[in-house]
Amino acid sequence: MRQSQRRIPAAVVNGTGYGGVELLRLLAHHPVFDLIEVTARSEAGKAVNSVFPSLGTMNLAFTATVERSEVVFVALPDQPATELVPELLANARRVVDLSAAFRLHDPSLYPRWYGYEHPAAALLEEAVYGLAEWARPRLPAARLVACPGCYPTAALLALAPALSAGLVLPDIIVDAKSGLSGAGRKLTIGMHYSEANEDTSAYGFGGHRHWPEIHQELGALAPAELLRLTFTPHLVPMTRGILATCYATLAPDVSAETVYEVYRQSYDGELFVRLSTLPPHTKWTLGSNLCFVYPVVETESRRLIVVSALDNLVKGAAGQAIQCANLMYGLPEHQGLPCEGVYP
Amino acid sequence: MRQSQRRIPAAVVNGTGYGGVELLRLLAHHPVFDLIEVTARSEAGKAVNSVFPSLGTMNLAFTATVERSEVVFVALPDQPATELVPELLANARRVVDLSAAFRLHDPSLYPRWYGYEHPAAALLEEAVYGLAEWARPRLPAARLVACPGCYPTAALLALAPALSAGLVLPDIIVDAKSGLSGAGRKLTIGMHYSEANEDTSAYGFGGHRHWPEIHQELGALAPAELLRLTFTPHLVPMTRGILATCYATLAPDVSAETVYEVYRQSYDGELFVRLSTLPPHTKWTLGSNLCFVYPVVETESRRLIVVSALDNLVKGAAGQAIQCANLMYGLPEHQGLPCEGVYP
Amino acid sequence: MRQSQRRIPAAVVNGTGYGGVELLRLLAHHPVFDLIEVTARSEAGKAVNSVFPSLGTMNLAFTATVERSEVVFVALPDQPATELVPELLANARRVVDLSAAFRLHDPSLYPRWYGYEHPAAALLEEAVYGLAEWARPRLPAARLVACPGCYPTAALLALAPALSAGLVLPDIIVDAKSGLSGAGRKLTIGMHYSEANEDTSAYGFGGHRHWPEIHQELGALAPAELLRLTFTPHLVPMTRGILATCYATLAPDVSAETVYEVYRQSYDGELFVRLSTLPPHTKWTLGSNLCFVYPVVETESRRLIVVSALDNLVKGAAGQAIQCANLMYGLPEHQGLPCEGVYP
Amino acid sequence: MRQSQRRIPAAVVNGTGYGGVELLRLLAHHPVFDLIEVTARSEAGKAVNSVFPSLGTMNLAFTATVERSEVVFVALPDQPATELVPELLANARRVVDLSAAFRLHDPSLYPRWYGYEHPAAALLEEAVYGLAEWARPRLPAARLVACPGCYPTAALLALAPALSAGLVLPDIIVDAKSGLSGAGRKLTIGMHYSEANEDTSAYGFGGHRHWPEIHQELGALAPAELLRLTFTPHLVPMTRGILATCYATLAPDVSAETVYEVYRQSYDGELFVRLSTLPPHTKWTLGSNLCFVYPVVETESRRLIVVSALDNLVKGAAGQAIQCANLMYGLPEHQGLPCEGVYP
Repeated sequence: MRQSQRRIPAAVVNGTGYGGVELLRLLAHHPVFDLIEVTARSEAGKAVNSVFPSLGTMNLAFTATVERSEVVFVALPDQPATELVPELLANARRVVDLSAAFRLHDPSLYPRWYGYEHPAAALLEEAVYGLAEWARPRLPAARLVACPGCYPTAALLALAPALSAGLVLPDIIVDAKSGLSGAGRKLTIGMHYSEANEDTSAYGFGGHRHWPEIHQELGALAPAELLRLTFTPHLVPMTRGILATCYATLAPDVSAETVYEVYRQSYDGELFVRLSTLPPHTKWTLGSNLCFVYPVVETESRRLIVVSALDNLVKGAAGQAIQCANLMYGLPEHQGLPCEGVYP
Repeated sequence: MRQSQRRIPAAVVNGTGYGGVELLRLLAHHPVFDLIEVTARSEAGKAVNSVFPSLGTMNLAFTATVERSEVVFVALPDQPATELVPELLANARRVVDLSAAFRLHDPSLYPRWYGYEHPAAALLEEAVYGLAEWARPRLPAARLVACPGCYPTAALLALAPALSAGLVLPDIIVDAKSGLSGAGRKLTIGMHYSEANEDTSAYGFGGHRHWPEIHQELGALAPAELLRLTFTPHLVPMTRGILATCYATLAPDVSAETVYEVYRQSYDGELFVRLSTLPPHTKWTLGSNLCFVYPVVETESRRLIVVSALDNLVKGAAGQAIQCANLMYGLPEHQGLPCEGVYP
Repeated sequence: MRQSQRRIPAAVVNGTGYGGVELLRLLAHHPVFDLIEVTARSEAGKAVNSVFPSLGTMNLAFTATVERSEVVFVALPDQPATELVPELLANARRVVDLSAAFRLHDPSLYPRWYGYEHPAAALLEEAVYGLAEWARPRLPAARLVACPGCYPTAALLALAPALSAGLVLPDIIVDAKSGLSGAGRKLTIGMHYSEANEDTSAYGFGGHRHWPEIHQELGALAPAELLRLTFTPHLVPMTRGILATCYATLAPDVSAETVYEVYRQSYDGELFVRLSTLPPHTKWTLGSNLCFVYPVVETESRRLIVVSALDNLVKGAAGQAIQCANLMYGLPEHQGLPCEGVYP
Repeated sequence: MRQSQRRIPAAVVNGTGYGGVELLRLLAHHPVFDLIEVTARSEAGKAVNSVFPSLGTMNLAFTATVERSEVVFVALPDQPATELVPELLANARRVVDLSAAFRLHDPSLYPRWYGYEHPAAALLEEAVYGLAEWARPRLPAARLVACPGCYPTAALLALAPALSAGLVLPDIIVDAKSGLSGAGRKLTIGMHYSEANEDTSAYGFGGHRHWPEIHQELGALAPAELLRLTFTPHLVPMTRGILATCYATLAPDVSAETVYEVYRQSYDGELFVRLSTLPPHTKWTLGSNLCFVYPVVETESRRLIVVSALDNLVKGAAGQAIQCANLMYGLPEHQGLPCEGVYP
């Protein structure tokens, strides 16, 4: 932290979902963002650390609204976010939104995938898709950042180098395994411990909401009309973590050496995205903003398999949001973000 | 049980691995197979239920060798099995082997995949690959049954209907998720609870030993020379269960309706292999011999995705072994086998 | 099974809670009880195995009411049970109730501990408290059996020998650890996988509903007015299993040898309650009707510590219910009940 | 951090056990302690983050010995620590030892409880028992701090206020539940995921090594000759966390109000030890240096029950070590220590 750095007043909207609580944990000691407001409709007035004792010594109470912050981290579900965000922007605040509300560029996708007409479609073009490693140039000027979903983050960090370098055919399978916190704090029978423990299952056949987002972003790297994307999410019995195993066919004449070299160059110098020499474990990333990427060429089948691992609530949500905000304000990218996983 | 049915004396060799203990649990109350001998080099002389208290009231002690049984379930690692099995057969016993020792038809695959010359290669041709639902005609006459591995069972039950009916191109990806018991009871750091809990990872890049077995069996259903098989096993934090998510491209002009009809016919009347109308959960199968198969056609990508779920120690090992033995002796196929999973 | 044994038509009321589903699993192959009716208000008309695919091949549909069964297993919450059970009895059916509705002898305890006046208090005296190992003499004539709760079963099997033989002072601490399924299938935030996983906590301070039941039964073995009982339940991150660690002070002049001898005699010949020579593991009991009891005298502190382990849904609920029903009808006590745990 | 603060060169000895790796994670960003050396016999020369990828960007390699550090965190097993620590002190380094090597004041306890004669018994008197909240006055001058074990930390923080204020009789039961990482990284069959998952058990009957340590410290607060201590450790299926449920009988005439007031005063102003108004969850503490303490008076039995929760690798090991080191050097006590748990 530069000594003269002023503190920037910051808010978290909806600090009671898993994404919101994780923002609170990470912002608690951020050297520049000064967390002064946390909203939660149902808990307004209560001390944050009485509702979430894990927040130890945090000295804040929930409020109903944002009043004084310059930068606002919005951790609402997507539909309420479509309504609040324009209002925040109108009040000259900068917004980092963790929901899907502003991730898709094409407004017509909202009725189809989310079931409503987007009430602020004009903002879809302006919003910067906040996969931090790609979005760096656009973030300093951004008013609104739409942070990627956890699955898209894992899939895109795994596949982008190969697709943008034309190493593979645009015929992609993403088989992703997620811990239960990815589904949020809402109660459904499938989230019951006794149902989810000692269980693995696939879901989302017929269309998971993260599909169009992955499709949109991969389609920007490859001929979108040729892109053939299958995305199968799975639930595995753990709280945090996503492992994405991605499959594509090598383009003709592409060698394994070329593949590894492209990945090396793509992530050389990256702090959070780390090329792994062993198949990565989600456990390596627990509580940190790390994402491990492991490309492997299977010569016999001429397939490229890329495995990525991250913590869905950090690099897949709150951590990436802070990383983006750091970049928006010209701060060191890793400010306030853990680079070390809680192991074991 | 027919009243006049004589009891058939049966043995389990190496009753101290997970496959062996599961055989003991299942055979404890088999109405025909009379479990009279259980071997375990290191525990000979000890009461079985003092070493494994879960075996409750089992009134047997471990012995060093098989002396009196007609049918022998061998739960050794593969290399010791290659040596013991010929000896058992020479003594006119029938053998159900749970290891890989006699699964591959081509002897040259053993040096490459298992690291040794097969000492009893002549038996590889005779051995019946014991995927019970396929092997029925050959089992009554079999002297030696080589039970499939847990991954191959999951993959083959998922894919065989499509491949044998020519519904898909022979370009296959099997992304499989397994609980930790699949790796057996041996101690490696990756099996440590603190390492494996809250963790998901892929492994086996460069060649998992189940690959040639899946390749051999799928290659019998499709032109083997065209078969392009990628198999990626994963460990997920649960004790039992395999979920295999299998991907293939539909052959031209094949409709979704045709696919579902073929699967319906393939498993119509099967007791243990059940076509599911929902994405299956491994939890549905815990402790039972059930396998759920869920085919879904993704029209946009023209992919067939088939998910299968089973208990790796039952349908993937001990249960299938007993199912095969039932068929060898002309008994009802489900004799002594649980058709209900322990839920939750 | 005796060959001439007639089948007894049996029903499960509320087959959709965890206790109910477990009854279905266990009754599926009972040689005498013929499961012909399963009720579930909300699911009436649906096939049982479409709602619970784990029930594999079960060929039954949920119904709204019991019409034809002689023996009825009631798996309702306690208050609805107080209303249904008298009606079932009036129709000359025998009832095995898994709830607390008829466990307490003193009607005045219901307003205090359960929040309602008992509408069928006259039955409280008649109901047999169905801890099978103790209740044997009264079961053949019983019309109504009130099966113990899962915690009381664990505590009573651990402590009864010591208390009834006067080996300890009536000053008792029961520190019990339960898996999540003990709390049933209802949704509360504490049951959410992400909350319960990687977590241990105590609860029920100020009075858990199983306290008066443990107090009543221990008070029948020791001077009730001297009994000083502390019961602290805990939740640990597993689906099934209860481990009860029970503490008492040895009475003067009681030796360790006496203690062990009393326990040996108490459980000698028992099939399901097994004296353990090692600290027991809940895993030994998974899916089975086993209960392990491990008494240990700590000479320095002159304390008796008794650890018991069981599966809360089997010996702690559905299994014990069937064990009682077997005894009601003069059947072998273990009929249809697993004596082997699913391990690992 | 004060701007003029010099960095203090620091080492971790044996950075490959769980305690050692946790020290590395926490010290990675300590503003004053400058982690410059990490030893590991077997891994010397390897990059720390290649052996432990969770350590993300840590730029250090393992070495064989400590050469340049002023303060040394020793994370060896106890017996090797008895040999290394005197040597480190002789070289004028200050030592924070995480093992039991210097925790017991009475040398005669080592042969009995640890199986060897203590080779540096003279240091046992000098060593400060580093339960940070109690040891503050002695830490600034300490050359050698013996950090408490994880179980003793949980038990002592729960019980010390009551015992030192004479609120309870010195008749104590500590029933503690621990995650698996407490047993370290060594491989035993009980640590195998398939054995430990879905399992709860007690262990250590006949004497757990933490018993004399708890006895020594409680005996300093109450008449040691009257102290009657029972300590029962349990393993529950989670990686991290200890929940200690402690039982004692209230002294005559002590009221509940007095108890709560004493606890309030004892922990008023403490940053890491937090009095809870709800039964605490180990999950609240994951990855943080927090310890929650929850006293409850059961009026009917006149028992005091105190539940404490902490992360065994942080407040129970590495975090407390750093807390002590902060105090040794006059730094703010929380320097570099997380006050927020990773939730969920």
